[in-house]
Amino acid sequence: MSQNLTEQLSLAGRRIERDSFAVIDRESGPHAYSDSQWPLVRRLIHSSGDFDFNGLTRFHPKAVQAGIDAVRVGAPIVADVAMIGAGLSRARLARFGVEVHQFIAEPEVIAAARAEGNTRAVQAMREAQRRGLLAGCILAVGNAPTALLEVLRLIREGRARPSLIIGMPVGFVSPAEAKDALAVIEDPPWILTTGRKGGSTLVVAAIHALLALAESHQDKP
Amino acid sequence: MSQNLTEQLSLAGRRIERDSFAVIDRESGPHAYSDSQWPLVRRLIHSSGDFDFNGLTRFHPKAVQAGIDAVRVGAPIVADVAMIGAGLSRARLARFGVEVHQFIAEPEVIAAARAEGNTRAVQAMREAQRRGLLAGCILAVGNAPTALLEVLRLIREGRARPSLIIGMPVGFVSPAEAKDALAVIEDPPWILTTGRKGGSTLVVAAIHALLALAESHQDKP
Repeated sequence: MSQNLTEQLSLAGRRIERDSFAVIDRESGPHAYSDSQWPLVRRLIHSSGDFDFNGLTRFHPKAVQAGIDAVRVGAPIVADVAMIGAGLSRARLARFGVEVHQFIAEPEVIAAARAEGNTRAVQAMREAQRRGLLAGCILAVGNAPTALLEVLRLIREGRARPSLIIGMPVGFVSPAEAKDALAVIEDPPWILTTGRKGGSTLVVAAIHALLALAESHQDKP
Repeated sequence: MSQNLTEQLSLAGRRIERDSFAVIDRESGPHAYSDSQWPLVRRLIHSSGDFDFNGLTRFHPKAVQAGIDAVRVGAPIVADVAMIGAGLSRARLARFGVEVHQFIAEPEVIAAARAEGNTRAVQAMREAQRRGLLAGCILAVGNAPTALLEVLRLIREGRARPSLIIGMPVGFVSPAEAKDALAVIEDPPWILTTGRKGGSTLVVAAIHALLALAESHQDKP
């Protein structure tokens, strides 16, 4: 079996995806995104069925290029939850040598969260920092606002410097505040969904969009 | 380290979840769900940040009880995509002896989809049927309408009989039609999100809600 580089591995699957994108383009109405940003927004809509992401999605001006560059140098992805790694196409990541890391289920992380009275997500980010993964990585947050807030703290302290932050935590306690804090950062670049909406499937969609852009760059002669 | 049965393994994580549920109850307004249905709907809102699921979520009258019963007898979960298994709490599933199965990435499934010109999701459901897993299982569809349509076909032919169908595929080509087909079925019971919205995170949330209900039943003297 030959290696196929799209995550839609059958012809029927690819046809459904193409038809879906056409429906989204037709129904989504006007938008203010650039030609490189829209494919990512379209994929968020595709993964959720929610046209609100045309508007809720915000980009640092250098974010898409930073994401493409990070993929092309094989930067690691640090994810807050395991669903992100499970949703990403291994074949497409492998083309660029990109590996996915997540530490939320590590016994040490769980024990530290209990001992210090914070969340597993916070401790997972500290573990990623200790392993040197927060330098140059794509940080992918789909669930835990506390993970995002912790990395922003580490960045302020000069102890983390991701290439790109994908900040799409979901929830009702602090996600909007965490994303507001992200949206004012000049460096590193970021992509986020404002307000409460977010989730792991959206983060996976965003990364697949960046992979597609990196692939099309690579395919050029 | 003792085994904790909630997926929010730290005290801080549990506090955030409780506060989030309080916000959702306060802001969601009136609803037409029963006392056993609302915890599941609330979890869908919690996992997406989208209050539309108060309204979009529909239940067969026997669905919640069928789900609790299936969990309590340790029925297998057959999922259309790997993200569902990655998002579910292993410790909570293990309490009831529930295992998660998915076949979308099996080489035979991919090869069969190519050869027959249909989707991997269709072939994955056929593989589950061949292994006897579609009898008594909780069928969990978060991505592929074609998986749902294939199982409905197998049910009509008398070759599949899940205990419960969670039908929350997302997309723009056939998910609404697939869910319409599910919504008219009398047996087996089903839970679905009408229209285009859906996704793996929602399916995970629905199953965690059923696990919580099964746990509270079990905890009663």
